[in-house]
Amino acid sequence: MRRATIKDVAERANVSLKTVSRVINNEPSVAQATRARVTQAIAELDYEPDPSARNLRNGLSFVIGLVYDNPNPHHIIAMQKGVLAACRETGFGLQIQPVDSTSPLLADELAEFVQRSRLAGLVLTAPMSERKELVDALAERGIALVRIIAATEDPDDGLPCVYVDDRGAAYEITEHLIQLGHRRIGFLWGGPQHRSSSERYAGYEKALKDYGITVDQHLVVPGDYTFDEGFRGARRLLALQEPPTAIFGSNDEIAAGVLAAAKSASVDVPYELSIAGFEDSPFSRQSWPPLTTAKQATADIARQATRLLIAGLRQYAYVDSPTPPRNQGFLPQLVVRGSTAPLRPR
Amino acid sequence: MRRATIKDVAERANVSLKTVSRVINNEPSVAQATRARVTQAIAELDYEPDPSARNLRNGLSFVIGLVYDNPNPHHIIAMQKGVLAACRETGFGLQIQPVDSTSPLLADELAEFVQRSRLAGLVLTAPMSERKELVDALAERGIALVRIIAATEDPDDGLPCVYVDDRGAAYEITEHLIQLGHRRIGFLWGGPQHRSSSERYAGYEKALKDYGITVDQHLVVPGDYTFDEGFRGARRLLALQEPPTAIFGSNDEIAAGVLAAAKSASVDVPYELSIAGFEDSPFSRQSWPPLTTAKQATADIARQATRLLIAGLRQYAYVDSPTPPRNQGFLPQLVVRGSTAPLRPR
Repeated sequence: MRRATIKDVAERANVSLKTVSRVINNEPSVAQATRARVTQAIAELDYEPDPSARNLRNGLSFVIGLVYDNPNPHHIIAMQKGVLAACRETGFGLQIQPVDSTSPLLADELAEFVQRSRLAGLVLTAPMSERKELVDALAERGIALVRIIAATEDPDDGLPCVYVDDRGAAYEITEHLIQLGHRRIGFLWGGPQHRSSSERYAGYEKALKDYGITVDQHLVVPGDYTFDEGFRGARRLLALQEPPTAIFGSNDEIAAGVLAAAKSASVDVPYELSIAGFEDSPFSRQSWPPLTTAKQATADIARQATRLLIAGLRQYAYVDSPTPPRNQGFLPQLVVRGSTAPLRPR
Repeated sequence: MRRATIKDVAERANVSLKTVSRVINNEPSVAQATRARVTQAIAELDYEPDPSARNLRNGLSFVIGLVYDNPNPHHIIAMQKGVLAACRETGFGLQIQPVDSTSPLLADELAEFVQRSRLAGLVLTAPMSERKELVDALAERGIALVRIIAATEDPDDGLPCVYVDDRGAAYEITEHLIQLGHRRIGFLWGGPQHRSSSERYAGYEKALKDYGITVDQHLVVPGDYTFDEGFRGARRLLALQEPPTAIFGSNDEIAAGVLAAAKSASVDVPYELSIAGFEDSPFSRQSWPPLTTAKQATADIARQATRLLIAGLRQYAYVDSPTPPRNQGFLPQLVVRGSTAPLRPR
């Protein structure tokens, strides 16, 4: 049997050659029904696009990978939502790859993931995105990537990224607690391997300093971005001879743990203890009282990062593509809810 | 330049031909470091496995797709975890595809997804897995799939599935509430497009009947598997002249909404109102009081379904593969926590 051509596909699907080409190249703005008709014609005719033409486009695939190591389901789902939104805009597919960020072979494992699944590129989230030697190793192997990182400004190091000003947002949360009259403000760290943790701590520390409050290291507890660590850390702070009157948990999961610890110790939130989180996860709106937090537009951040990655791939692939968008910064916004209040004198 | 052979790869990676073959076929039990070495050798030599040999294996790819339409992040993440665990066991990659289960073009869209991303098969979750015409349409197009469905027994219809006895588990939850002394037990429905919703309702109804309690339709509220619907439904039930003394929310998100509604109305849980959910999500353990629920081993269910899919693919691909495992049923287990108790007389 003669090998099917693009013309055969166009005839069978009753569309123009241009439309078939757009479907093959996964370009947007082809109606869903048309796309389905073309795909079906391709399948029925067993049509294979010309391999040399594909090579011209550097053998690009239309699947990207999302790489994460994060214990927080809300955060992962929000990330996936944002990446998927950008994939839908551009016709890309998404493979997900949870990893162990502490693995010494991570660069090899990720290179294998890209090779095996023929990925066009990777969206790297923290903490992988913040390990310079890993990012360099991947870039040296020619793997296209975009990073989502915690930083107050664009690192401007030649590799695309979206950066989130965790420090600035943590400053605002701490300032809010100070302005409510709190002086003894506890701080529960996220995972130390995430730069967002040290950035949020830096914002907390700077706000205290700016308001002339000495940082009391008894009120600062190391931990991880989980409910259990928030619960444990809060129990420890509440057991102090002079406990804090407010606790800033480095994310909403931690703050949820603080809330549970306060309730289990019959501490009245917010009148005996103010609690603030970070992220604006669904939990922060659904808890009672709802949580003061920093709205970290996670899905928007992930979508923008993915657009950046795909724009870079397209620029690489098509000479006439528009300039890729620039690195972009996000500042999470303070959201005040019922979990923070002035101390009520007994 | 001469085209690289599998022998060149084996020499460069310093492994046996068998090992290269196992890496190419994504078979398990190749050490991570060895796998990385072989993958790198393949990349460096630009080695392409013999296309005709690949065709012998029916052009199988080593990527599967997970298809879902569910508003509950914890549930999605648990599903993904289970599917990813089975993928890791077998060297498969995972693409995720949230869809609109009400789309009339869903069969075309999914066929396009499979075609475009060259997927080996699909894991279909509810409600897509429960729409017979959709499943038939996909099977007719030769798409390998496995379904996760709500059913008390194996449908035994020739297509692989994992089935979850939502009805039996809902019966146990309702029985638990009855045994605590409750007679007016509210029921908040999940999304009507999910068979799990009607199965859970059937279990509730049967338990009431078995204990000689008439179903009062004023206590039964339609809704969806979300916090907001739980909140809304509970407000409605609590406003009744004679409100229920217990509310069974069809999942933990709904139950979380009931808990928030009770707290906002200063109703004491569990002494003025018992609340039960379904799923054993992290929230059910983290709320105050923690929720009585049915532990629905979501990750295990999804892993088992994926093993079933992949075993079928392997059987198709290799004559000497073991018989694929059979369809398997799961019964979620009652977990009693602090949110349910006998009514405390005022």
